[in-house]
Amino acid sequence: MEFRLPPVPRDLPIGVFDSGVGGLTVLRALQAALPAESFLYLGDTARLPYGTKSPASVVRYATQCAGLLVSRGIKALVVACNTAASAALPDLAARYPGLPVVGVVEPGASAAVAASPSGRIAVIATEGTIRAGAYVAAITRLRPEACVTGIGGSVFVALAEEGWTDGPIVEQVAHRYLDGVFAGGDAPDTLLLGCTHFPVLAGALRHAIPAAVTLVDSALTTAQAVARQLATQGLARPAAAGALGETRFLATDGPERFARVGSIFLGRPLTVRDVELVDV
Amino acid sequence: MEFRLPPVPRDLPIGVFDSGVGGLTVLRALQAALPAESFLYLGDTARLPYGTKSPASVVRYATQCAGLLVSRGIKALVVACNTAASAALPDLAARYPGLPVVGVVEPGASAAVAASPSGRIAVIATEGTIRAGAYVAAITRLRPEACVTGIGGSVFVALAEEGWTDGPIVEQVAHRYLDGVFAGGDAPDTLLLGCTHFPVLAGALRHAIPAAVTLVDSALTTAQAVARQLATQGLARPAAAGALGETRFLATDGPERFARVGSIFLGRPLTVRDVELVDV
Repeated sequence: MEFRLPPVPRDLPIGVFDSGVGGLTVLRALQAALPAESFLYLGDTARLPYGTKSPASVVRYATQCAGLLVSRGIKALVVACNTAASAALPDLAARYPGLPVVGVVEPGASAAVAASPSGRIAVIATEGTIRAGAYVAAITRLRPEACVTGIGGSVFVALAEEGWTDGPIVEQVAHRYLDGVFAGGDAPDTLLLGCTHFPVLAGALRHAIPAAVTLVDSALTTAQAVARQLATQGLARPAAAGALGETRFLATDGPERFARVGSIFLGRPLTVRDVELVDV
Repeated sequence: MEFRLPPVPRDLPIGVFDSGVGGLTVLRALQAALPAESFLYLGDTARLPYGTKSPASVVRYATQCAGLLVSRGIKALVVACNTAASAALPDLAARYPGLPVVGVVEPGASAAVAASPSGRIAVIATEGTIRAGAYVAAITRLRPEACVTGIGGSVFVALAEEGWTDGPIVEQVAHRYLDGVFAGGDAPDTLLLGCTHFPVLAGALRHAIPAAVTLVDSALTTAQAVARQLATQGLARPAAAGALGETRFLATDGPERFARVGSIFLGRPLTVRDVELVDV
């Protein structure tokens, strides 16, 4: 079935999906960058994590998530999950040709390239994102001579979901993942956070890498990319004095856990009454 | 559809399932206890982890896993996943009345009660297992005045899957989860490992708890329970001189990751050729 974008009222929400709660760091950056916009966030918590699933499964899940959001009515789609963006962005863009579709990979790659004088860039992400090679591809498209080091950092996901976002455990895990990468003369000068869970760990990561290394957070750069696309396509909602957008939350499983753990990533309290249980 | 057990050849395999690779610690204990038996292991890796899913989802997944194993022909079913055993064991036993069905919860609870002079027992498991309350129920059925402390330990799962099974990080995580529980005069005298991932961390956990506390591993006691049931029902395969059973592995996603991470839990190398990809 081909999707045709109807004449879109500018006040339709922006759809955002992730495998779970990590994408709430992207939503938070979007809310900050676009306070007048409304958002519809879907966490596919029944099937999280995507990071350890095969690309074929991830494409199927992402297509179903996008389909649900489109059926509710959205004016743009943000794939706030690195694994899904790595595996499924071209499919989604092709399926909804009239709809702006933005993933977290291209904006992150672009910000990392801009931040790196040497072209030596490290990316820390889930195993699935690293294996999919999307960051290497996106970075080398922008800068063919770049040297990209991928680091699978699955333990960080568990630490972030537990709310252990600073202190000695996070720092030791960071050293274990990163020390080997940042030792030596040819070490990367930029570390890209290639998983939406990781911005909440940025403080601890900052301590674990040399001071000269730039830390790039793809949530922020994704929000900027969305703002640009909306402006270009005339889809931005005018910022009327004091008129703030609304945000609604959907989850495919466990609204209670979504609310509790999601609060860590969103940076403000969520309650179970804020979350609608849906089937995709 | 009601399941009717046909006349069973004793050399049918024992079916074992888990949400992923953690149940391989149970399989390992089963292989050691029952070397003449064959096993058919299913890891539902497409939908792992179960530990953060709702009980209704876990029951649906467990029913599908059991159905697949039964359709392949098994003489007994071992639910080697604490979350699935907590949520779905009564359903599975009711669905297959002729089939011995053994979970990891009852054997673990029984071993913990036997090991605890004081009746103060701590259980460390995934959030889902703790929330389901199955260990509290199973332990208090056996010893009504028992005092059970549940500890959700999700970070341990990530550490075990990363192969970080000892060293300072695991020990600090253990202290963070356990110090509060084992402080004070009325502390538990027994710690039950209520997640199949945790036996590989037993060494590090041992260091983090007082020497007088007994560590109970439900993999071992589950294997003993299966051996007893097979013997009682005349289903045990006679141990012919040197005749070892065979083990086959099924996974619902990512055979490569199953083989790589599974090797940690099985305690011997697995290759991708050992693992058949299946759909449930």
